[in-house]
Amino acid sequence: FQSKLPKVGTTIFTHMSKLAEDYKAINLAQGFPEFDCSPDLQKLVDKYIKQGKNQYAPMAGVLALREAIAQKVFEATSTEYHPVNEITITSGATEALYVAISTVVNRGDEVIIFEPAYDSYVPAIEMNGGLPVFVTLDPQYEYIDWEIVNSKVTEKTKAIIINTPHNPTGKVWTATDLKQLDLLVEKHDLFVISDEVYEHIIFDGLQHISAASIPSLAARTFLCGSFGKTFHTTGWKVGYCLSPKEFTAEFRKIHQYMVFSVITPFQFAIAEFLKEPEHYLSLSSFYETKRNIFNNAIKDTGLTLKPSEGSFFQNVCYENLSDEHDLALAERLTKEAGVASIPISSFYDQPSDFRVLRFCFAKNNDTLLRAGELLNKVI
Amino acid sequence: FQSKLPKVGTTIFTHMSKLAEDYKAINLAQGFPEFDCSPDLQKLVDKYIKQGKNQYAPMAGVLALREAIAQKVFEATSTEYHPVNEITITSGATEALYVAISTVVNRGDEVIIFEPAYDSYVPAIEMNGGLPVFVTLDPQYEYIDWEIVNSKVTEKTKAIIINTPHNPTGKVWTATDLKQLDLLVEKHDLFVISDEVYEHIIFDGLQHISAASIPSLAARTFLCGSFGKTFHTTGWKVGYCLSPKEFTAEFRKIHQYMVFSVITPFQFAIAEFLKEPEHYLSLSSFYETKRNIFNNAIKDTGLTLKPSEGSFFQNVCYENLSDEHDLALAERLTKEAGVASIPISSFYDQPSDFRVLRFCFAKNNDTLLRAGELLNKVI
Ligand SMILES: CSCCC(=O)C(=O)O
Ligand SMILES: CSCCC(=O)C(=O)O
Repeated sequence: FQSKLPKVGTTIFTHMSKLAEDYKAINLAQGFPEFDCSPDLQKLVDKYIKQGKNQYAPMAGVLALREAIAQKVFEATSTEYHPVNEITITSGATEALYVAISTVVNRGDEVIIFEPAYDSYVPAIEMNGGLPVFVTLDPQYEYIDWEIVNSKVTEKTKAIIINTPHNPTGKVWTATDLKQLDLLVEKHDLFVISDEVYEHIIFDGLQHISAASIPSLAARTFLCGSFGKTFHTTGWKVGYCLSPKEFTAEFRKIHQYMVFSVITPFQFAIAEFLKEPEHYLSLSSFYETKRNIFNNAIKDTGLTLKPSEGSFFQNVCYENLSDEHDLALAERLTKEAGVASIPISSFYDQPSDFRVLRFCFAKNNDTLLRAGELLNKVI
Repeated sequence: FQSKLPKVGTTIFTHMSKLAEDYKAINLAQGFPEFDCSPDLQKLVDKYIKQGKNQYAPMAGVLALREAIAQKVFEATSTEYHPVNEITITSGATEALYVAISTVVNRGDEVIIFEPAYDSYVPAIEMNGGLPVFVTLDPQYEYIDWEIVNSKVTEKTKAIIINTPHNPTGKVWTATDLKQLDLLVEKHDLFVISDEVYEHIIFDGLQHISAASIPSLAARTFLCGSFGKTFHTTGWKVGYCLSPKEFTAEFRKIHQYMVFSVITPFQFAIAEFLKEPEHYLSLSSFYETKRNIFNNAIKDTGLTLKPSEGSFFQNVCYENLSDEHDLALAERLTKEAGVASIPISSFYDQPSDFRVLRFCFAKNNDTLLRAGELLNKVI
């Protein structure tokens, strides 16, 4: 069998979740909430199913949902996306990213991505015959070195993928970063694919700055988002892509034949649920509390906290505690401490000697406290 | 913008559905049921949502659903698919087909398809750099000419896509067809992609013969199916692909990064609903009645019925009534008679002088009778 993706094996998420199950460990590895979504949202789904919203949604998505997204994005960024021809509902942000990448990347094109990077970008680029070009974040995730980014641009560069708040580091792109990005893509005529699925999980008074908030940048951007993280519904797979009209036309040609349309009753339910901004504006403080609980619970372990400015991930460094490779330590902690995490090296193209683990704190407070106790005993 | 799919425009389904809406016509164009799914199935979804099955399903799908499918297919074909590594749940059959095609088709590969053909096959082949090679069905949709199929095979042929019962014609592949296919793919070492979404809608005592029912054929096949047509839930987008272990491994690498996973609570609900075979075994007689009602309602129009052996489509020929191009007639009937249909030429690569329209009879009996009356007045 001639493999299209010879390098792809079992994902680290599946591997660590399986290990957590086998050893009955607390799973702080794969990023999904332990708690349920709002009962009000569940009732809305039930209402629309009973109303018979069970046949094909329009290929581009239920209009009410596209309108609600347009409204929400306009309020946050002052940028207008037209619901009819600039917004497409997708099967989660994963599909939005895959289709956006497929829309712009042709054989031989280079695409700049920041590493550590979420694991779907590289296979999506490679499936389209493109080449990922990596810019490695500084070890403290403190800044983006735009000179380095600039130096990676070649004649073949076609696009750049950004992700803010960033998985796995929690780094939040600053206004300056977005301006630098805008200059760079203008200068080199590049497309931007912006993964903003953690837009509503951001800490310490920081602000999410969307690629949509700078008009010249928005004009080059496929903005990918989702409701999975925002409404604690990672299993519902309702995402979206916002992009200028001509981009959207090409995006939809691919989306149309890849999945055609997305789960109808949930689109209606989310459209209605979005009308109350409190449903997502309260999310940052909810998760900031959890981050603080977890960080406090592990403060005596000797693990060093990396900054976590957003997302629901906390990275910790253990280089003063152990010499183990991060995968070995993540596995050992799962077996011996009963707490699963993700080794950061799995988010890099060329794994080298990282001493960092990623913990997901989208869990009940009890679970976070218990995980802290367990880690304290072993480390 | 360099288009990946320069030939793709608005689909005929979107075009005709829009026209139907504008002229308040009865929509017998796009294929979806007018009636709702079972309230019992709706209750199951509600139950699993309330139980909190709202986070990521496993990438390959909820195991209970994969087991239920394995059981059902085993009973029908005596072929065993292992739920763990030979069955993958997808975002509808559309995603299953797209991923299966992406798994096997490389740049320059030829893929044989029968036309008229469902509209997603060609773009999926082209997105992967492949070339569709067309075998045109005889005008009465009576037989597959396997000599012609054989003559289309070249050194570059990689796969063959079949679809039984067939959209748009309703043709059902016979046991002989499947045997011929088996010989052909064995001889030329080809992959098979089998679209069987109408498997439970089959008339006049005919039997659905799955590609899975011949072991040597199953060993080369990606069998794509879905629950949208079977349970009147085209908007739920739960499909699947069954294929041998090594095929499935490659299939999942792509599925994993294209959509990752599929709507969790519906998978649990369908798994439970599948335990009662009556839920799908009664479907053929349900639709056979509808076909007969519709055909009876249009018997005085002068339209000639083509055979409809399965699916929920009835094709009619009008060559003795009018000289119009089928698209022109479909548009005129929508505007003047208030009944929308699909012109068959839209399912062909090189549209020529077809005098055939496709009507969808997945509608309430009243609607079918009313459509007959309206057509009688105008034709
Ligand atoms: C789609 S499984 C991975 C979930 C996730 O976003 C993460 O853990 O990083
Ligand atoms: C996905 S829209 C088309 C629905 C359908 O299967 C058809 O009408 O042929």
